[in-house]
Amino acid sequence: MPEPRPDEPLPVPLPDAVRAALLAPLVDQHCHGVRRDDTTRSGFEQLIGEGGTPAPPGTTHFDTPAGAAIRRWCAPVLGLEPHASATVYLSRRAELGATEVNRRLLRGAGVSAFLVDAGLDVPGVLSPAEMGRLGAAAADEIVRLEQVEQDVAEAGLPAADYAGMLRDELALRGARAAALKSVAAHRCGLGFDPSRPSRGSVIAAAGRRLADPKARLADPVLVRHLLWAAVDVARERSLPLQFHCGLSGWGPSGTGDAGVAGHLADPALLTGFVRALAPLGVPVVLLHCYPYHRQAAYLAGVFPHVYVDAGPAVAHTAAGSAHVLREVLELVPFHKQMYGSGCHGAAELCFLGALHHRRGLARVLGDRIAEGEWSTADAARIAHMIGAGNARRVYRL
Amino acid sequence: MPEPRPDEPLPVPLPDAVRAALLAPLVDQHCHGVRRDDTTRSGFEQLIGEGGTPAPPGTTHFDTPAGAAIRRWCAPVLGLEPHASATVYLSRRAELGATEVNRRLLRGAGVSAFLVDAGLDVPGVLSPAEMGRLGAAAADEIVRLEQVEQDVAEAGLPAADYAGMLRDELALRGARAAALKSVAAHRCGLGFDPSRPSRGSVIAAAGRRLADPKARLADPVLVRHLLWAAVDVARERSLPLQFHCGLSGWGPSGTGDAGVAGHLADPALLTGFVRALAPLGVPVVLLHCYPYHRQAAYLAGVFPHVYVDAGPAVAHTAAGSAHVLREVLELVPFHKQMYGSGCHGAAELCFLGALHHRRGLARVLGDRIAEGEWSTADAARIAHMIGAGNARRVYRL
Amino acid sequence: MPEPRPDEPLPVPLPDAVRAALLAPLVDQHCHGVRRDDTTRSGFEQLIGEGGTPAPPGTTHFDTPAGAAIRRWCAPVLGLEPHASATVYLSRRAELGATEVNRRLLRGAGVSAFLVDAGLDVPGVLSPAEMGRLGAAAADEIVRLEQVEQDVAEAGLPAADYAGMLRDELALRGARAAALKSVAAHRCGLGFDPSRPSRGSVIAAAGRRLADPKARLADPVLVRHLLWAAVDVARERSLPLQFHCGLSGWGPSGTGDAGVAGHLADPALLTGFVRALAPLGVPVVLLHCYPYHRQAAYLAGVFPHVYVDAGPAVAHTAAGSAHVLREVLELVPFHKQMYGSGCHGAAELCFLGALHHRRGLARVLGDRIAEGEWSTADAARIAHMIGAGNARRVYRL
Repeated sequence: MPEPRPDEPLPVPLPDAVRAALLAPLVDQHCHGVRRDDTTRSGFEQLIGEGGTPAPPGTTHFDTPAGAAIRRWCAPVLGLEPHASATVYLSRRAELGATEVNRRLLRGAGVSAFLVDAGLDVPGVLSPAEMGRLGAAAADEIVRLEQVEQDVAEAGLPAADYAGMLRDELALRGARAAALKSVAAHRCGLGFDPSRPSRGSVIAAAGRRLADPKARLADPVLVRHLLWAAVDVARERSLPLQFHCGLSGWGPSGTGDAGVAGHLADPALLTGFVRALAPLGVPVVLLHCYPYHRQAAYLAGVFPHVYVDAGPAVAHTAAGSAHVLREVLELVPFHKQMYGSGCHGAAELCFLGALHHRRGLARVLGDRIAEGEWSTADAARIAHMIGAGNARRVYRL
Repeated sequence: MPEPRPDEPLPVPLPDAVRAALLAPLVDQHCHGVRRDDTTRSGFEQLIGEGGTPAPPGTTHFDTPAGAAIRRWCAPVLGLEPHASATVYLSRRAELGATEVNRRLLRGAGVSAFLVDAGLDVPGVLSPAEMGRLGAAAADEIVRLEQVEQDVAEAGLPAADYAGMLRDELALRGARAAALKSVAAHRCGLGFDPSRPSRGSVIAAAGRRLADPKARLADPVLVRHLLWAAVDVARERSLPLQFHCGLSGWGPSGTGDAGVAGHLADPALLTGFVRALAPLGVPVVLLHCYPYHRQAAYLAGVFPHVYVDAGPAVAHTAAGSAHVLREVLELVPFHKQMYGSGCHGAAELCFLGALHHRRGLARVLGDRIAEGEWSTADAARIAHMIGAGNARRVYRL
Repeated sequence: MPEPRPDEPLPVPLPDAVRAALLAPLVDQHCHGVRRDDTTRSGFEQLIGEGGTPAPPGTTHFDTPAGAAIRRWCAPVLGLEPHASATVYLSRRAELGATEVNRRLLRGAGVSAFLVDAGLDVPGVLSPAEMGRLGAAAADEIVRLEQVEQDVAEAGLPAADYAGMLRDELALRGARAAALKSVAAHRCGLGFDPSRPSRGSVIAAAGRRLADPKARLADPVLVRHLLWAAVDVARERSLPLQFHCGLSGWGPSGTGDAGVAGHLADPALLTGFVRALAPLGVPVVLLHCYPYHRQAAYLAGVFPHVYVDAGPAVAHTAAGSAHVLREVLELVPFHKQMYGSGCHGAAELCFLGALHHRRGLARVLGDRIAEGEWSTADAARIAHMIGAGNARRVYRL
């Protein structure tokens, strides 16, 4: 085993095959576009803080695990010393310009394909195609169900046409998508009744919904209707259905709704819905999940159609992410875990997600090999499955 | 401290007294019978996957933490090299035959007494006596409450006789048992009203129940009635009452019921019931618990009559189990934790539960000694208490 | 880096600046008074067990992580060898007398300021001023809201005057306090409706409440009224509002109420209330939180006004506390975590809280530096912020 060089991404010496598997291109199976333009310090801080708000007076979001990781790991990508100060980092960022910074960081992530949720309603972010171009990778689109529903709700149609138009619109957008994605966790929580709602209840709920179409979808009946309509499209098109889970997006400016507390994003609440989908052959991908990632790994272990992606928790926990991955790997079948950065806004989070996925997994695999638990060949195979192989199989890339 | 040999079960060098305590016979205070006959590859995979279902096409349940551990640790017990392939392993398993494999693995677990829940309605598994004979250990029976109730419900008696016959049957079966066990978590969740239901409500619920006696018990009123009837027998016979907790059995073919999501198996939900039992002197043993094992350890810390067993999570997390044990040991009093494999179906899980209990505990104790936190004498004493001493005291073995 | 001496509190060698920051005086931002008088062995055991009950027959609360830490770390403070037996320890404790023991342990904690919740209704404990005097530290008082409400309820006034007198009493006591504190988790759980209750509903609830004034406050309407009245005082006085969270106090003699299960102390349940306070500028400090500390760290990350203190879990998990701190540090902004011992009853828990805060943080910081993740300067700054700087800023000490 060669010693790793100090400038290398892997923190421990590993057998060549494992090292190669970890450094091979990843499939980033869930991310969002990053901002295409330069931003102020305050704007940048809002992108890297998990809450999307400014840091309290006298503090900075650079004083977070992700902020420290940006200074440590992204600074060299921009030609700076590790641990550069926030001021130096942002000044260099401005000097290079957003396009060059995005190019360096997205390429530096070492990703061969991005699956991009372009439905987060934020202006000024790169499209999936642009993410691919700057990142020297393929790019496909993930359709965000609630965005489709919002468009339908705002189209000014009568309640009786709501279900039909939603079905048509989902089919249309699903035809060019790699996956469908739900943020039901943010709208009514994941503890919804797993059954398909009756036609009558949907028409009644649609009537209420269309009386205030600019409001966000929150009615559990319509959330369930949307999900089951999506399941129909997913079956027809063999598309996986992704679910946002876990604590992310609950801050004051996040997409989590006022009346829904974070504990309702526990994927264990999805047990009934996942069970209902079991006979249908629609893969379900649990995104993010932290701090309920063990629950997600369990579901992936017992339901043949369930997958798990520790998602943006890896980028945000940064130096602490090895432990998160270790917990996912306690139970998850090796053919059920996937990599996704879950980044949005800042290309730094795309880069850090990939870096800490590799660093964290390197630590876990290194330990397993050193303890005699897993063979070198198995460790290399596991790294490959989680990094790209499982996603290529599930999304048929 | 001598260096451990590579073929030894303990992963770190330890003082002799600690080593001896870890290698001493265990009491497996909760397990199920393993299959007595040979099985196909598909059948074996279903036994080792947590969900009890086949692996998705193109994948294998050997690609799980438990599957990797079987290839690593059980292969040598069958005379193979560590990390033998799944095909080689299964071929050797067939060659030796189920009885010889069971004999080697059950004996290899190093267990002096098995407490066996024989009420899981699966054909072709060893009886408690057979488990003991093949494992060269004593064996006692755990009475599964819901099985007793099912038998009573199916006996064709009028609703007015339900409570009386249930009481009599529990008393009868309790008379030859080492413990009683509830899977209320799977039937209505652990958030049930902790009070004893009224006689009237029980008769009414029994009427509904007996109209469809083949259905599984799920009515919370009858679950509570069953638990309180069990408490009466437990008090009389000084029997502990075990509770299945945590994420296990929620897969498509598991015993978890369709309408009950996994989060309802959190033992923290039992706070009220445990509090109600506090004055009665009936020990309560929380089984499995993962990923809510910290909650269980807390309850064991604050209630004098509560115990905890990390259970099948140890066998299933395998190489990752040290971390699970480390979390249980964060709060649990040393006289409150017990060992149980929770195995069912495959003798491999009985063997791995014991092996990884010893390996995981060895790591935690080794760290505590190295950090100067616990003395060698204390570490040895703790290993003994958790491995066998506490169970011998609680079950009066 | 110098080697640490075996008698030193830090378990790993660290750069001088980090070492100095860790050994600098702490602000203990949440604790209770410790007993001023000598006690029996049984009495002492009840103080150190988390449940406040005697250990089961044949066992001892010294056989817990905290008990083992007392023998290891407090024994030398009393002039004994590390790992002294419980009997020797208690005999030496009696010989020195409670005042001298308290003086040694409180001083040994290395605290420059105590914030003391004096509202826990336990006789024979040191006042805040006495805690300060014996600990050679400043001391301020935390007002326990439910104690104020109890006093008001017992004052024998008509329901129409309840709200006014509560407001006046909170304002009066708040005027000389460093913070306000709620144990709503113990009274109705943290899942209460976050909105301010209507005047009419409060008067109606007060009428019911005053019919049995000796009972403990449990009505969610009055709990919410108390919290919003406290928010008014907190805004006026710029006082932080502390919330007891997590599993602590649910034992048979704890302050957790019979009808409230431990899972209702999950701070994620506070999402809505915290969101409602976001525009008001009232800092919210989540206390204890274990095993929901990741949820608390997340809330501290996304809400500018939320802070987290892992609290008594550090003293009680003792040798295992580094892992708990590691999990808090996965997400928490460095300017949002604070130190508090949460001790009550036994000065040992005050000492151990501080010791294991330093030891645990030393391990995490040592790892981060060794892995090249954080710079030495950052690590020192983080240690200082968490240990004292953040509390000095938030409480304006």
